[in-house]
Amino acid sequence: MQTTSEHRIDDGALERRSTLGGVPGVLWTPPPAPAPAPLVLLGHPGGLARMYPRLLARARHCLAAGYAAAALELPGAGERPPSAAAEAARADLHRALAAGRPVDDGIVDRLVLPLVEAAVPEWRAALDELLALPGLGGPVGISGGIVSIGVRLAAVDPRVAAAVLFAGSHVPRLVLEEARRVTVPLLVLLQWDDEGNDRQAALDLFDALGSREKTLHANTGGHTGVPAFEADDVDRFLARHLG
Amino acid sequence: MQTTSEHRIDDGALERRSTLGGVPGVLWTPPPAPAPAPLVLLGHPGGLARMYPRLLARARHCLAAGYAAAALELPGAGERPPSAAAEAARADLHRALAAGRPVDDGIVDRLVLPLVEAAVPEWRAALDELLALPGLGGPVGISGGIVSIGVRLAAVDPRVAAAVLFAGSHVPRLVLEEARRVTVPLLVLLQWDDEGNDRQAALDLFDALGSREKTLHANTGGHTGVPAFEADDVDRFLARHLG
Repeated sequence: MQTTSEHRIDDGALERRSTLGGVPGVLWTPPPAPAPAPLVLLGHPGGLARMYPRLLARARHCLAAGYAAAALELPGAGERPPSAAAEAARADLHRALAAGRPVDDGIVDRLVLPLVEAAVPEWRAALDELLALPGLGGPVGISGGIVSIGVRLAAVDPRVAAAVLFAGSHVPRLVLEEARRVTVPLLVLLQWDDEGNDRQAALDLFDALGSREKTLHANTGGHTGVPAFEADDVDRFLARHLG
Repeated sequence: MQTTSEHRIDDGALERRSTLGGVPGVLWTPPPAPAPAPLVLLGHPGGLARMYPRLLARARHCLAAGYAAAALELPGAGERPPSAAAEAARADLHRALAAGRPVDDGIVDRLVLPLVEAAVPEWRAALDELLALPGLGGPVGISGGIVSIGVRLAAVDPRVAAAVLFAGSHVPRLVLEEARRVTVPLLVLLQWDDEGNDRQAALDLFDALGSREKTLHANTGGHTGVPAFEADDVDRFLARHLG
C-alpha cells in the first residue's frame, strides 16, 4: 500500500489517497480506538474522481459509526487504462436499451464478467493490505457498487461479514449461479422503476442469493432515485452485523 | 363510543375496551399533550383476545412516539357472529393450499370481499368517533392486518395519511384495481417464503399501488417470520409521515 497524500477530516478521521491492491484508491480511517475498526468497502460505478463527493458522504456515515471505509478505482475506469472490449459491450448495451430491445446474455457477459474477473482479485489484495494496518481488523462489510462484484466477493471471501447490494445493473448467468453460495446477511436495494435494469432480473437475483438472512428494500423511482432514508437503513443494517 | 373498562398502563397511557364504530375494540391513548395525537389503526387477522399481547406490544411502540392506537374486532371473528359463507370459503382456501392447487379468484372473492365490505365502513365509523375525542385529531396511519382492508381504507378515506401494509393474504381483483387509487406514502412488508400466499401476487399488489412514495421490505422466511428489526422500520416510517 503506497500512500500519495493524506489529510485529516472531521474529528480526527484520516483520508488517504493510496494504491490499494495495486490500483488507485481512497481510505478513510476513524481516530484510534481500543478495538480494531470494522471496514466497509464502498462500491461505485467507476470514476473515483467523479464519484468522490458521494463516496465521502458515505464514508462519513461509516466514520460516524467507528468504521473505516475504502474505495478502489474500477478496472477500465477513471485514470486506469480503458478496455476497448468493455466499451464496445457498453455501446451495444446502450443501443439495446435505446431501441427498447431486450439485453441479451452475450452483451451482459462481455460487459460485466471481465470487470468481475479483474476487480475481485484487486479487492481481495486490497483487503490483505488494509486488514494488516494498525487499528483495522474488525469485520468487513460491502456497500453498493457493481452488484456482480459484490456478489462474487461475498461468495468467495470469508472475511466479508455482511453486504449491501444495489440490484441496479445487469448480472451474468454465471454470477447468478454464484449468488447461491453467498451466506452472509444481505440488504438488497432495488429501484422499482430503474430505467436501465430489468426488474424481474433483479428480483431473480434476490431470490437466488443463498443467505438465510436477506432483506429487499424496493423503492419507487429510477436508477438514481434511491430515497435519502435508505442511507439510514444501510447504517442500521451495517451496525447490526459489523457491531 | 361506549367504554366497558379502562385502566392506566405505562407512564400515564390509558387502555380502554370500547365499542368503536359499533364493534368491540381497544383504544390506547398517550398522556395529554399540547398537540392533537396522531392515531394508528392496528390491523390483525381477527380475534382480538388472541391477538391482544401482540397488539399491546405494537400499541406500546405507538404510545412511545406520542400516538394513540386502536384495534377493532374483524367481522365474523372473536365474539362477533361467525359468517358461514366466510368459513366455507376459508375451508376451500385451506383445501386448495393443502393440495398445492392454485387458489382461484372465486375463493379469494368469497373469502375477502365480504370482509372488506363489512370492515371498512366500521373502521370509518370508528375514525369518526376517535377523531372527535379530546387529545386526538392528528394524522391517521394504518399498520398491518388484512391487506385488502388497508388498501380500500387508504383508497377511500382522506383522513389516512400513511399506511404500513403486510402483503400476506390474498387480494381480490377488485381490490387490486382499487390499489391504483391509493396515493399516501406506503411501507409494504412481504415475507418472501410465505407458505400461504403467492409471492408474485404480492409483488403485483406492490406494483399496482398508486402511491408515488412506496417502499417494499421483503424478508426471507414464512408468514409469521417477520424479523424483529422491521418493527423499528415501521416506527421510523410512521414517524416520517405522522410526525
